[in-house]
Amino acid sequence: MRETPPRRAVILSGLGGMAAAGLTSVTACSTQADVADGAATSADVAQARTGAGGAASGTSADGTPVAGKVCVPGPGTAYRPFRGEHQAGVDDEPQPYVAFVAFTLPDGTDKEALRRLMTVWTDDIERLMSGRGTLTDQEPELAAVTARLTVTLGIGPRVPALAGVQVQAWLAPLPAFPSIDRLDDRWGQGDVLLQICADSPTTVAHAQRRLITSAGELVTVQWIQRGFREPFSGIPSGVPMRNLFGQVDGTVQPDARGVDASLIWAGNEAPDWMRGGSSLVLRRIAMDLEKWDRADRLSRENAIGRRLDSGAPLTGTDLNDTPDLDAVDALGFHRIDEAAHVRRAHGSGVERFLRRPYSYDDPPESGARVNSGLLFAAYCTDPVRQFIPVQRRLAEKDLLNLWTTPIGSAVFAILPGAGDGEILGQRLLA
Amino acid sequence: MRETPPRRAVILSGLGGMAAAGLTSVTACSTQADVADGAATSADVAQARTGAGGAASGTSADGTPVAGKVCVPGPGTAYRPFRGEHQAGVDDEPQPYVAFVAFTLPDGTDKEALRRLMTVWTDDIERLMSGRGTLTDQEPELAAVTARLTVTLGIGPRVPALAGVQVQAWLAPLPAFPSIDRLDDRWGQGDVLLQICADSPTTVAHAQRRLITSAGELVTVQWIQRGFREPFSGIPSGVPMRNLFGQVDGTVQPDARGVDASLIWAGNEAPDWMRGGSSLVLRRIAMDLEKWDRADRLSRENAIGRRLDSGAPLTGTDLNDTPDLDAVDALGFHRIDEAAHVRRAHGSGVERFLRRPYSYDDPPESGARVNSGLLFAAYCTDPVRQFIPVQRRLAEKDLLNLWTTPIGSAVFAILPGAGDGEILGQRLLA
Repeated sequence: MRETPPRRAVILSGLGGMAAAGLTSVTACSTQADVADGAATSADVAQARTGAGGAASGTSADGTPVAGKVCVPGPGTAYRPFRGEHQAGVDDEPQPYVAFVAFTLPDGTDKEALRRLMTVWTDDIERLMSGRGTLTDQEPELAAVTARLTVTLGIGPRVPALAGVQVQAWLAPLPAFPSIDRLDDRWGQGDVLLQICADSPTTVAHAQRRLITSAGELVTVQWIQRGFREPFSGIPSGVPMRNLFGQVDGTVQPDARGVDASLIWAGNEAPDWMRGGSSLVLRRIAMDLEKWDRADRLSRENAIGRRLDSGAPLTGTDLNDTPDLDAVDALGFHRIDEAAHVRRAHGSGVERFLRRPYSYDDPPESGARVNSGLLFAAYCTDPVRQFIPVQRRLAEKDLLNLWTTPIGSAVFAILPGAGDGEILGQRLLA
Repeated sequence: MRETPPRRAVILSGLGGMAAAGLTSVTACSTQADVADGAATSADVAQARTGAGGAASGTSADGTPVAGKVCVPGPGTAYRPFRGEHQAGVDDEPQPYVAFVAFTLPDGTDKEALRRLMTVWTDDIERLMSGRGTLTDQEPELAAVTARLTVTLGIGPRVPALAGVQVQAWLAPLPAFPSIDRLDDRWGQGDVLLQICADSPTTVAHAQRRLITSAGELVTVQWIQRGFREPFSGIPSGVPMRNLFGQVDGTVQPDARGVDASLIWAGNEAPDWMRGGSSLVLRRIAMDLEKWDRADRLSRENAIGRRLDSGAPLTGTDLNDTPDLDAVDALGFHRIDEAAHVRRAHGSGVERFLRRPYSYDDPPESGARVNSGLLFAAYCTDPVRQFIPVQRRLAEKDLLNLWTTPIGSAVFAILPGAGDGEILGQRLLA
């Protein structure tokens, strides 16, 4: 077993010499028992997933929590792997709950502080995603309900600059779209982002809490945006989600692990520290449900260019049919309106990206009846080439703009996945 | 088929003569096709529940929504019956998501306005719980995901007064508990309450939206409190829920349909309009997770009097073991602390009530790191006899008070269920 420094020391005094000392694994375990329990965890989880496990105590005889124990086997313990070429939470099936948490880095943050932050969070995320509490976690029972938890780390424009590397050209707030935007600074650009997704809101809340706490004074919470999707997938099979307009949303997606991989994941064209990474454009889009109520179904379908029931394009019968943008009716009019969302959003070639939208429905401000919308999360290799042209077309003309208003906008680089023994941002902070 | 007035007429002009005209069924269908579809719905839903259903269109050929169609069979269509002696949403298994929505009645509200409100909402709730959109619902696909939806209607002290009947003595804000309360008016007493629960937050959002919209100018939204529970029941089997302290919550419950029925449901001692009803005490309890972090597991278990892992009392081994409040250790000290929550909360005889707690985890105020707590929902026949004595003991002494602060409080009468052909509040508004 390899000796690693206690994590409290990592947080308080930094780990600058860690890589230099040849410590390739940053599990930062403080005791041997901890490591042993950690090793046992996968089996526990696997057993739990089959429903065969009995309850195991998460505390030692003296009541001290034993980190790394799966205390509560049963449903909800499905989990996703943390380590790999890419981070989880981008191209996998979206879990029903999300918290996007943006942080500000305090003045004076340097590369060393960033390394401490990434070291702590890498350890936290790996533990949480595998069903173990974080090292200082006194509620391991909450951590044990993994619920397919993914925590995905993004960085804003300040981080590469602080790390002393060149900032990607696209890693900047989007240009203004004055014809549609009513942006509120409270949902603006952040320095660091955690995207926390799971099948259980309790799991999301617990992970969020532990990650915020672990970071100590290294970050300040800037905003938190909570969202949800329908927890019942396959309704009917293949409908990705319905937003609060009742529309099927996020239908046509690039094949992120196949022929379209280069649209989603940075390759050799990118600097070393971004290879295997991606980008996230997060737009908070208010949806005026009261105005939407005044549109009948025909108008709604015309605005979208798709049927409300099946999600099929107006020129087709199946959700996955390709919209026929050239089709005309007997009078020679396009069957899909000139300003229909599906036409204006339609991108070919590089103008495509992966979407993972979530609804939000927050308590209305005093006197209002509704405060709802969409957290539109789009992932691609280069937002300037892929996302912005589409957004520009939509800003220029899109019937849906009658009911939707972007009120928040931020862009993050999604770091590559952490390989064995690596921290997130390993090559950025090397 | 019985003729019923179109619902728009109900909303706009009232239904004062409806009962007098012998209209016992208030399904308020506007077309015969609607009724036929409504009749088909149960079978559709049943078919959907077995997973055997194919997708059925929710729109007619011209794109008009056909209310009453189950448009999207598949998972998520389990449903609970609306009509019966009691309202749903009290003693049934809690669904993972809740919105408690309190409303204010405008000045000048009279019995007739109340009857219109109850007529509209009764129809809405029955439709929504059975997977049909409300009559003006243009998103029937969202309504089709019933997700065990329950909508439970409560009334505050103003309603019986407006209806010209005597107000129950217990139907009033709780007395002040100055040693613990830090009540914020924004979570205070309302005139009417809808408790909306489902397995899907999209279903909750849609139902909330439709119910608020249907009520038109008859009500104003006062506050909305959203909450959640772990969606994976039986972790391990029998653990009701864990709150964000990691505690097992809501363990010992009265047998609401058996020997303890009189503790939960109003009987012959109550006025006619309340028989079969109950009461809800809703306390919003902030939980100081940052302070809780500074308590170790032994201190936490001592404060609660239960083990954190299994939820068993400190004097037992199983969740359902009865706490032995007299047990002493070798030194003669009580094994369950004098101020432990489980001891102080322990009620016998009539001092018992049904709890259905939900966690909340809202975005923190600017600069804060956490804004979490519990929506403590307690149901009983008479809060003055059953709830207040327990609350008084807890206010006087309870170790958990170190970490918890009541910041909202309201009391509602839960109306009896609607029988066939009845509206909610039928006997109140007769």
